[in-house]
Amino acid sequence: MSNTDFKTEYFTMKEEDVIQYVKTELSFFKEDAKLECKEIGDGNLNYVFLVKDEVHGDSIIIKQAGPVARISDEFKLSPDRNRIESEILKIHDELAEGFVPKVYHYDPIMNCTAMEDLSDHTIMRDALMNKESFPLFADHITTFMVNTLLLSSDVVMEHKKKKDLVKSFVNPELCEISEDLVFTEPFFDCVRNDVFAGTRDFVEKEIWSDDALKLETAKLKFDFMANAQSLIHGDLHTGSVFIKPDSTKVIDPEFAFYGPAGYDVGNVIANLIFAYVNGVVTMDEGSEKSEYVGFLEKTITDVIDLFNNKFKVAWDTYVTEQTAKYPGFMDHYLASILKDTAGIAGCELIRRTVGLAHVKDLTSIESAEKRTRAEKVCLAVGKAFILERENLHSGENYMEILNQKMNEI
Amino acid sequence: MSNTDFKTEYFTMKEEDVIQYVKTELSFFKEDAKLECKEIGDGNLNYVFLVKDEVHGDSIIIKQAGPVARISDEFKLSPDRNRIESEILKIHDELAEGFVPKVYHYDPIMNCTAMEDLSDHTIMRDALMNKESFPLFADHITTFMVNTLLLSSDVVMEHKKKKDLVKSFVNPELCEISEDLVFTEPFFDCVRNDVFAGTRDFVEKEIWSDDALKLETAKLKFDFMANAQSLIHGDLHTGSVFIKPDSTKVIDPEFAFYGPAGYDVGNVIANLIFAYVNGVVTMDEGSEKSEYVGFLEKTITDVIDLFNNKFKVAWDTYVTEQTAKYPGFMDHYLASILKDTAGIAGCELIRRTVGLAHVKDLTSIESAEKRTRAEKVCLAVGKAFILERENLHSGENYMEILNQKMNEI
Repeated sequence: MSNTDFKTEYFTMKEEDVIQYVKTELSFFKEDAKLECKEIGDGNLNYVFLVKDEVHGDSIIIKQAGPVARISDEFKLSPDRNRIESEILKIHDELAEGFVPKVYHYDPIMNCTAMEDLSDHTIMRDALMNKESFPLFADHITTFMVNTLLLSSDVVMEHKKKKDLVKSFVNPELCEISEDLVFTEPFFDCVRNDVFAGTRDFVEKEIWSDDALKLETAKLKFDFMANAQSLIHGDLHTGSVFIKPDSTKVIDPEFAFYGPAGYDVGNVIANLIFAYVNGVVTMDEGSEKSEYVGFLEKTITDVIDLFNNKFKVAWDTYVTEQTAKYPGFMDHYLASILKDTAGIAGCELIRRTVGLAHVKDLTSIESAEKRTRAEKVCLAVGKAFILERENLHSGENYMEILNQKMNEI
Repeated sequence: MSNTDFKTEYFTMKEEDVIQYVKTELSFFKEDAKLECKEIGDGNLNYVFLVKDEVHGDSIIIKQAGPVARISDEFKLSPDRNRIESEILKIHDELAEGFVPKVYHYDPIMNCTAMEDLSDHTIMRDALMNKESFPLFADHITTFMVNTLLLSSDVVMEHKKKKDLVKSFVNPELCEISEDLVFTEPFFDCVRNDVFAGTRDFVEKEIWSDDALKLETAKLKFDFMANAQSLIHGDLHTGSVFIKPDSTKVIDPEFAFYGPAGYDVGNVIANLIFAYVNGVVTMDEGSEKSEYVGFLEKTITDVIDLFNNKFKVAWDTYVTEQTAKYPGFMDHYLASILKDTAGIAGCELIRRTVGLAHVKDLTSIESAEKRTRAEKVCLAVGKAFILERENLHSGENYMEILNQKMNEI
């Protein structure tokens, strides 16, 4: 056991420390509980422990921020991200109840959070890799996004309260990761990139040599850094979603800060597209599109269209800002979110294909030929989304580009 | 004397308290100094004391934040604005040395700042009312603005350091004043507005009934609230400038926060236009344009054109951001600042004519007929700037609209 004094100084806990921690610091389990603990984290930044009482079946998650990122110790991170995560989960629970795990306890010394165990859910990316369908996902995630994004913005929230939240969630280190990995490195031949051999020629020609594309990514990057529009999740990919057929829980909001609302929507779309492209390129030759691929098509379309529709309904219901009620302002505001959505979806498609952090949807494709095709499609779609982002207003618009590139490549 | 204990609790100082304060808290004056103190403030928010040693001639300013705004006790303000002011003056002195008063001391208990006495300078608005010309002003103020705005932005400043400054200068109360008085109230028949009788019909028809104009003001307002681009002064009118022929000092940065860079440039332009319109409408009939009016024409033109030119030079000199160096990005970035400049100049022209806080340039015009003409010109110019802000790229563009409206009205 590394240490059992949790009151004075941070240390990285091991499984046996966590059992001790739960016993002395929380009153969550029954007195006669017999606790088991297992580290189950597979993310890039944190340690995640599942603690379970074998007697009564109760369970809890303890998530502890490590002193450096697990993906690479190049990223030195302040453990303040755990404070951000626990506070954001509480805010999300207020704005979009039922779509995030409950937080029971936050400990600023050990930099850990005790939260609801969602072991009956699966990480959505894994479930999608198993070709599972979730027909309610589009409905759930759009409710979550409309509520968290619109209700935290100046359109609805009292402006001084919003500014207090802006201040509270300035997030320099995690934002720097996104600035570098999403908006900068994927667009030149950076040593930290990780480009699949078969895809390299395409990247050099279509991405790194395209000045018009690079200019648009700079605009998106500066907007990401300066546009304090909504309290965004900041990392809303399918690995940040716990899912089962009747429930969707958004986790891991440690990248949260006030940024462009379209950032979250764009990340959801891009990561659904990775699953879709995987689903299509790994089909047996000549076979019909599976129900699973149909589910993904419908979900990509619905995420955009339901977001649109629910955003308008929520606007009419919640808007408090006098000038936001001027005729035409909602259309202007929503159009700018949709434009950002397409641009960000494009950046995410490109950066997860050629940058430092890949997605299993692509890397797990065993055939080099099929993987190359899948990656080229993602890059071509991403590029088109960025360059044509002004014109992507509906789910159909997204599917048109996606199908066009699938046919061409 | 209200109190002589300056260490424990804030109180609003009177002149005799300030003398005591300077003696016990600062080591600025010589031992045998004989101090005189006078409250000389005429702003809306603070008390300004000039303390002078009659023996040696040394002098200093003590500026204390009052608990409420002087213009109206409706505005309850946290005295944190004095902390903001003193810190901003130091930052401005680093970024644009010589263009702000030196700060000697900041006291967070008494909420006051000791700073350089600029009694040999005049408040620029007063000097302009006396028809004084300052041929170096355009050069000085554009250097100040390019340096403070560009060097505090993500284009130049290290991004994590910039985010720390964003956090440090979140300014909810002062921003709320601008949100209400600049962007909201002037555009409907608000009880706090103060509309000159002769101008009222014009306001009702041309401003309050124009939905297209109002929509554009909402866009500008939301951008003001969300666009954390540069550390702006936030109130850069001719009453915030101390001037003499060879020196320009920008004071009163208590409204500072990270906002759109064009906000400062637009305020300078609008307030020069008030002086210009005053100068033209109060000319004797049939007389030639005076040298003073020519100085204002040239200064309005030069502020835009020198800002443009110096911005490009500073960009090439100071830019550190890799993606900001992409071909075309500077043009995009500068164009968006110029667009905001025109929009904000328009809002300032309208709000200072019909809103709560007026300018002497208009209210001092004795002839009701001339004042009405001056006000209508300012409103028409302001409206055109807002609606045509995409197309205002040069000083000439500004003067064209200004002269066109002067001829029409």
